[in-house]
Amino acid sequence: MTNQPKAPETVGRVGEEVVLETLRAAVDPHNSAVTGTSMDLGPGDDAALLTATAGAQLVLTTDTMSEGQDFRREWWLGSAELSALAGESAEKWAMDVGTKAAAQNLSDINAMGAVPTALLVSLTLPADLPVQWVKDFYRGVIRACQQPGAQRCVIAGGDLGTGEQISVTITAVGELPREAEGQPAGGLRRSGATAGDVLAVCGPLGRAAAGLAFLEMPRDELTDPEKLHHLDQHADLLAQVLTAQQCPTPPLTAGPAARAAGATAAMDISDGLLRDAGRLARSSEVRIEFDDGALLVEARTLEPIAIAVGSTPDQALSWVLGGGEEYALLASFPAVVELPEGFRRIGTVADANGAPGVITGSAVESIGWDSLA
Amino acid sequence: MTNQPKAPETVGRVGEEVVLETLRAAVDPHNSAVTGTSMDLGPGDDAALLTATAGAQLVLTTDTMSEGQDFRREWWLGSAELSALAGESAEKWAMDVGTKAAAQNLSDINAMGAVPTALLVSLTLPADLPVQWVKDFYRGVIRACQQPGAQRCVIAGGDLGTGEQISVTITAVGELPREAEGQPAGGLRRSGATAGDVLAVCGPLGRAAAGLAFLEMPRDELTDPEKLHHLDQHADLLAQVLTAQQCPTPPLTAGPAARAAGATAAMDISDGLLRDAGRLARSSEVRIEFDDGALLVEARTLEPIAIAVGSTPDQALSWVLGGGEEYALLASFPAVVELPEGFRRIGTVADANGAPGVITGSAVESIGWDSLA
Repeated sequence: MTNQPKAPETVGRVGEEVVLETLRAAVDPHNSAVTGTSMDLGPGDDAALLTATAGAQLVLTTDTMSEGQDFRREWWLGSAELSALAGESAEKWAMDVGTKAAAQNLSDINAMGAVPTALLVSLTLPADLPVQWVKDFYRGVIRACQQPGAQRCVIAGGDLGTGEQISVTITAVGELPREAEGQPAGGLRRSGATAGDVLAVCGPLGRAAAGLAFLEMPRDELTDPEKLHHLDQHADLLAQVLTAQQCPTPPLTAGPAARAAGATAAMDISDGLLRDAGRLARSSEVRIEFDDGALLVEARTLEPIAIAVGSTPDQALSWVLGGGEEYALLASFPAVVELPEGFRRIGTVADANGAPGVITGSAVESIGWDSLA
Repeated sequence: MTNQPKAPETVGRVGEEVVLETLRAAVDPHNSAVTGTSMDLGPGDDAALLTATAGAQLVLTTDTMSEGQDFRREWWLGSAELSALAGESAEKWAMDVGTKAAAQNLSDINAMGAVPTALLVSLTLPADLPVQWVKDFYRGVIRACQQPGAQRCVIAGGDLGTGEQISVTITAVGELPREAEGQPAGGLRRSGATAGDVLAVCGPLGRAAAGLAFLEMPRDELTDPEKLHHLDQHADLLAQVLTAQQCPTPPLTAGPAARAAGATAAMDISDGLLRDAGRLARSSEVRIEFDDGALLVEARTLEPIAIAVGSTPDQALSWVLGGGEEYALLASFPAVVELPEGFRRIGTVADANGAPGVITGSAVESIGWDSLA
């Protein structure tokens, strides 16, 4: 382990049974503390048992996060300068990976307008990883379940294996409560947007991408006094974009709120605003027209980070348009609906006229982004 | 790719969207063909939607299979001699990995006495893997869902990512039908065995371990004419043990049948008979007494493979006692119950007398296995 004190206990040395005990010691108190859980049998048998709420639909999603592909340990353990700026450590690394792996699945449940009830966690771990990492990882998963909107969510089970790199697969189970009158059948799908709707978003845009750009910046640039002074001046914003990338908190009450308000379609932004809006537009067979002005306002706040990583201010708009792993909630609402708290308007939905997709204004086109839509 | 013709299309070259289309083309026809499915919305949105049968409990389990840890591609692509003996190929490799990844999860659902209704499949794939591999992998997953007992099982969704090695995480969702009178509450747990019960098993023992021993044998031994002649004489058995390891078919109707017959406890054998029986004994706070004679009968059939891999006949008994990945179903039944079809008696359940665990006879102890229990 680079940059870490010698670990007294590693996953490989203590063996599977001890690691399982360790994680049970983290998970059981959380599960016991969850009120309103539907779990009848938790980790430890061949499978977990839950009782679904009568009449509720079941919502299921799964996502994998792999070291190297989705995160690098150097983002947390990279340099003294990074530690000074962002308070990084091995503990934060493990907790953040747990939180993010859970959050991206909870976000998918949220995007259907549903409430998460259980997670299953499958971990592949290198033998030289400290057992403490597993404890901290589960603390991170539990932290994600303690966010508003996820409080009914237990950790129902999982699997443990060894491999050369860390890989985490989480499956989230949720419930879509029985429909009230006026709610779309079967949750918030991508396919329900209608001409005349307002397009709105809940949660910041472009921050995770800005955070990633900072984390991937050559570390020796962090020794430049001028750059450090600039970053010092924008320390709060830097902390926000790093948190958005390393330890995101999707707006987990926004999905059910959007459904209750009568949203016609929704999806979370995991591959970038324009790309995901394009998918929603094609699923719904509509044309989405973005409000250039609204997007430029979103971008302006990120310009100090664009400058910090050595880009032009235009980079900030690119992050807003194309940044992945955002977990903001994109939704369409009938024009007469008052947007639920936290949603802001970023465009309108129009007839496809035979060409479903996304239209952006001249400011967006000027930086070469129209081709993606 | 070693030992494969040049692949015209790889996962990395065609990109995520094309791979997703490929797998949807495999999955959608299967899902459409499943009768009695509870799926309302399949792959393609943020999450899948299912309607649970009224009154049924939900059963959840997840398992990861990683290249290098759980399988090696050399088992299928290793040598001309192996190909001649076992008909190995790249197609069989991909299908077998899909079938086994699904089967081990379906086995966990079965072990609760439940019926599988949906799988979620998260795939991590090297960029140089042929797209054909993904097609064949899904054919293998579908093959597992076509086994008796799994016919209601759809593929509800998944995730796709890249990594250095193949890694597959499958989550299985099942339903435990409302209890009939006399059935144990909440499915077949590990904790319900009672003194006086009969211990029985459904499905072969030790075969997957025997198959593994053969696959891990140095390949140059396969060029020895005497060994090849011996293997030729036991070709059917060799095929059976290889299938048990590479492409298992757990007895998926046995769990619900055991539950209906009044079984008091059950679990699948994934870490070896003695180890798993020890877990069942400790969960139930009982003592399991194995019938040495019955285990010796199981072992005798595997002796030709023990000889083929250069071991003594005792090795066959070790496979029966300690062989993992077996997916046979271990269950306890009240002595008055007639064992359901496919189950055979291998021991009895006694009072723990303060020391829950497993007792074996002198034949087992003589080969040094008692310590594990």
